[in-house]
Amino acid sequence: MQDRIRIRSLSEHVGAEVVLCGWVRQRRSSGAKLHFLQVSDGTAGVQVVVKKGNVPDEQLEAARYVPFESTVVVRGTVKEDARQVGGVEVSATEFEVMSAAAEDFPIGRKEHGVGFLMDNRHLWLRSSRPRAAMRIRAEVIRACRDYLDEGGFTCVDAPIFNSSAAEGTATLFPVGYFDQTIYLSQTGQLHMEAAAQALGDVYCFGPTFRAEKSKTRRHLTEFWMLEPEMAFADLDEDMDVMEGMIGRVVERVLERCGPELDVLERDRAILERCLPPYPRISYTEALERLEGTDASIPWGEDFGAPQEDAVSAMFEKPVLVHRFPTAIKAFYMKPDPEQPEVVLGCDMIAPEGYGEIIGGGERSADLAYLERKIEEEGLPKEPYEWYLDLRRYGANPTAGFGMGLERVVAWMGDLGHVREAAPFARTMARTSP
Amino acid sequence: MQDRIRIRSLSEHVGAEVVLCGWVRQRRSSGAKLHFLQVSDGTAGVQVVVKKGNVPDEQLEAARYVPFESTVVVRGTVKEDARQVGGVEVSATEFEVMSAAAEDFPIGRKEHGVGFLMDNRHLWLRSSRPRAAMRIRAEVIRACRDYLDEGGFTCVDAPIFNSSAAEGTATLFPVGYFDQTIYLSQTGQLHMEAAAQALGDVYCFGPTFRAEKSKTRRHLTEFWMLEPEMAFADLDEDMDVMEGMIGRVVERVLERCGPELDVLERDRAILERCLPPYPRISYTEALERLEGTDASIPWGEDFGAPQEDAVSAMFEKPVLVHRFPTAIKAFYMKPDPEQPEVVLGCDMIAPEGYGEIIGGGERSADLAYLERKIEEEGLPKEPYEWYLDLRRYGANPTAGFGMGLERVVAWMGDLGHVREAAPFARTMARTSP
Repeated sequence: MQDRIRIRSLSEHVGAEVVLCGWVRQRRSSGAKLHFLQVSDGTAGVQVVVKKGNVPDEQLEAARYVPFESTVVVRGTVKEDARQVGGVEVSATEFEVMSAAAEDFPIGRKEHGVGFLMDNRHLWLRSSRPRAAMRIRAEVIRACRDYLDEGGFTCVDAPIFNSSAAEGTATLFPVGYFDQTIYLSQTGQLHMEAAAQALGDVYCFGPTFRAEKSKTRRHLTEFWMLEPEMAFADLDEDMDVMEGMIGRVVERVLERCGPELDVLERDRAILERCLPPYPRISYTEALERLEGTDASIPWGEDFGAPQEDAVSAMFEKPVLVHRFPTAIKAFYMKPDPEQPEVVLGCDMIAPEGYGEIIGGGERSADLAYLERKIEEEGLPKEPYEWYLDLRRYGANPTAGFGMGLERVVAWMGDLGHVREAAPFARTMARTSP
Repeated sequence: MQDRIRIRSLSEHVGAEVVLCGWVRQRRSSGAKLHFLQVSDGTAGVQVVVKKGNVPDEQLEAARYVPFESTVVVRGTVKEDARQVGGVEVSATEFEVMSAAAEDFPIGRKEHGVGFLMDNRHLWLRSSRPRAAMRIRAEVIRACRDYLDEGGFTCVDAPIFNSSAAEGTATLFPVGYFDQTIYLSQTGQLHMEAAAQALGDVYCFGPTFRAEKSKTRRHLTEFWMLEPEMAFADLDEDMDVMEGMIGRVVERVLERCGPELDVLERDRAILERCLPPYPRISYTEALERLEGTDASIPWGEDFGAPQEDAVSAMFEKPVLVHRFPTAIKAFYMKPDPEQPEVVLGCDMIAPEGYGEIIGGGERSADLAYLERKIEEEGLPKEPYEWYLDLRRYGANPTAGFGMGLERVVAWMGDLGHVREAAPFARTMARTSP
């Protein structure tokens, strides 16, 4: 409807007569002659007042009994009302039910189980909490892209289809591709290294797929990952970009998602403490700090959730943990020349138990080292031939990282589980709606 | 390297001594004592002058023989030189080869076949034409996102994994999902309709997969699609957004991608003619115009490439063709109430033979109509149950569209084939590198 006003912009039309469309999300009557409807069109919500005398009687009756989630068209006058969210309400002069909803809208005010809500995700999305989470997600995406675009990075999308199972097929999803079997990509990093040799500073940002059987609050089978890669960058620059980008995200969410944080009852003070700089400690230092606690582990073991949570609990902001043992990290990571038993890699651990939100570091530029590692780890060499070409023809120091979008969004909104940070989350047991 | 200057920003350092890193892309000597190297770090390229007396003799020799694509570190003074691209050159005081490339860099100046170039896409990307295409692609993405974000749309990512094969499995890719078979999504539209009921104006922008056996210059098996959806919008508003967004894309490419258009020898005058408004003609009018030409078809038949090309050739800008026959369009499209034999849908056809870059329109809000169409077309009803819920609980007029990113990028740069518009294009026969 071309002449409708979006509810978000009603406050620009105080005193004017407007047409708006939306869904009836709440309804309250003061006797038979005065009805207050909360109408939302997705952009925002507004109170519509339908009063006897202002509208024909049959419209008054329609307003009295309209089922929740019905679609309505309202003509009316915009009035200032400081008590209302948005500062206005609409006094109806015409009220039409465009489409009456069935009476059994499944999402009510009572508590529902998560399974039920996820089965009805297409309807649950209309509730205030999922809407707030989706708005925060969109702002996080935009903040990351703006930070990188303004910093001179070029967005280069990594391919999803890959013919080779470079790191083994255990956590890869196989795809029937005409007469072949190929796999869904788990990372764009190797492709981004090629792109960085062409364009300097690049990133990809798209869906990633892992066939992990994890059923934790931090895992999805399909999630979005942002992967910047910078030619000629070292670990310190890499950490600067991680910190700068997450700093921008926190700033933007605080600045632009105020109403959403309110809906989620998110304590802003906690986020305000998460502005940069962030502490940077080595794996070895982290282990020393964990000594004597329940999360203590011997040197050489990888962090699990208990270590991440214990380290993050020492600080009130994200922590950069660098220089993990070489033996537990991917073959392409560059060993620290001063202590080759650790690599020049880094994880960023979010506060409040949201775990690792970023992993990255310097890549080895050394062809012979990479060939040896591929052999030692029993990886097939053929799928890596093109990647090794990047070292044969103009090897360069390069660094980058991967950020898991849903974990960052879950942390921003304190959502508790990453499934609330995705519009339609996919897990082992869920691939619909 | 933290103290290096990116070549893009050299002109801010005229007169200063700087350090830069990059790949040697060209080399020319004036005798044994003076060498001109074209060095690029991905952000830009610059001429480095290595002259006897300014650098130690062994560095002079290194500069004389350095293989193409080797990585070098240069310390030197930035000098203004209006004859150079970027307006500066660097007079070296130190020249170090960081990593000498193998002498057989496969991408040379001679003509290569497409197969060879695609086999070496990880190296071919460094050439000027692919780099220009990728920069244009990044700008198109950014222009679309900015247009929608600034217009109040919320980015909501559609899921890739789907348990049901709603439109039949013929062009779907099956995925082995733990013990099940599921499919890769072909469109986010149905999910976007659900999201629009929650958030008003939404879009998804991600990879899409079609197992079509097409081997044309317009088809990839994996491509990016942008799908906006607007609650309460009609066909006219939908066409306004298509036009406004593509207009912004053209404007931005002209404004920000000047050097890239030069590399591609793209005629700017052709793009300048492609600013809005765009002609809007109905399918029936288009057929009348085609009468008597080779592309003439009987009413009721769908457009193919000959019709698209013939219609686009009548104009010098994108054309919006609306109201196609109901029988040839998807079941969810809304019939025109004034002439139900056509739907309120629209395709945007790009000039210069780049074909359909957008398809969209109004969706039917009528539950009974949709149920009948699903039955008539022999589609399984169960996978659509959640979609039909969107009509049971507050049906609303809604409109949206899908834009194929690679086709728009191919058109912008006049690339000839969509495979040049993707960083690592996937076709029936190609899933690597």
